[in-house]
Amino acid sequence: MNGKEISKAVIRRLPRYYRYLGDLINQGVERISSGDLSEQMQVTASQIRQDLNNFGGFGQQGYGYNVKNLYEEIGKILGLDREHTMIIIGAGNLGQALANYNFAKNGFKTVAMFDNNPKFKGSVIRGIPVYMIEDLPEYLKSHRIDVATLTLPKDYAAEMATILVENGIKGIWNFAHTDLDLHLPEDVVVENVHLSESLMQLSYNLEQKQED
Amino acid sequence: MNGKEISKAVIRRLPRYYRYLGDLINQGVERISSGDLSEQMQVTASQIRQDLNNFGGFGQQGYGYNVKNLYEEIGKILGLDREHTMIIIGAGNLGQALANYNFAKNGFKTVAMFDNNPKFKGSVIRGIPVYMIEDLPEYLKSHRIDVATLTLPKDYAAEMATILVENGIKGIWNFAHTDLDLHLPEDVVVENVHLSESLMQLSYNLEQKQED
Repeated sequence: MNGKEISKAVIRRLPRYYRYLGDLINQGVERISSGDLSEQMQVTASQIRQDLNNFGGFGQQGYGYNVKNLYEEIGKILGLDREHTMIIIGAGNLGQALANYNFAKNGFKTVAMFDNNPKFKGSVIRGIPVYMIEDLPEYLKSHRIDVATLTLPKDYAAEMATILVENGIKGIWNFAHTDLDLHLPEDVVVENVHLSESLMQLSYNLEQKQED
Repeated sequence: MNGKEISKAVIRRLPRYYRYLGDLINQGVERISSGDLSEQMQVTASQIRQDLNNFGGFGQQGYGYNVKNLYEEIGKILGLDREHTMIIIGAGNLGQALANYNFAKNGFKTVAMFDNNPKFKGSVIRGIPVYMIEDLPEYLKSHRIDVATLTLPKDYAAEMATILVENGIKGIWNFAHTDLDLHLPEDVVVENVHLSESLMQLSYNLEQKQED
């Protein structure tokens, strides 16, 4: 990083830039103008220039952006250039769906899953071993884990988060239908994903279109 | 609705109010002051009063908010008081996980799933029949479907969205790793859920805490 403070709004937009730049790399595109990127992303070219100026002189007049450089630079800012180890608590459908995602390409490697259902005992999902939940504290003592992903019912989420934090976990990716960050120590980072709230936004927007 | 325009920022916060109010109802709470709600939600009481004032006089001095009334009013604004029918395209783990969610309590009823994998032919997941993808256009001709949820690989998403829209679908809940809304007609509502972007935010915030 170049020492400058980057605003939260810019940070929130970075993953989307990262995704588009990754797509461009896959298409074999080596450089792109802010105008062309603007057309693809449906963001104004001036917003793109402003946002990307935060990361130093990657755009050059008459040349545009070097796609790969910019992709790597944004990846560094997002911390995707180092490997994070991840465990998933809850081996149900959502846990399994997340185990199937290729988050490893963003540096997040799922190394174990945990569940309280004995039917999972000894099973391996996509190469990832599933352990019983009672073995979690012991596991965390002997493994360095960066992120715990919670795909378990909301009634268990807060208690589980406490156990995780007591055993050194600093990052929680929470899919349970509750806001975990309100009750955890300040040095723990929580990202909540509330799927039903996303569905409610869709519902609201549908209503509005029908009223038009 | 009372005819007033409600700002987008307020609308974005409504699902969270709705969730907290639903929790309060489950706990048997009948009324709550903006101060108590503020403490639970970690939002300032004045923001709560300002937000909820948009919906008329539900808060009363010395009484607080009637939890059930407010819950129902917000539900109406979000369009949750009417039933929406939903289909899920992609019967893999994520599709199955979403089929397992109880979105019906918010008025969203999943009535069918579709997949191109013959192994699902004739199967029923959580009471929801799975049909082959080639039967989708015919199905949409004979069923009124409000929302299609896409849990299929990104390479198929745009084509599938086109087929859906051609067959009358007006709402798409998209989990594929691409922004569908950029290429669809204006009267189609799309809500994109990009899980890896959420993970990148977590990654960034972890980096920041470690630098502190």
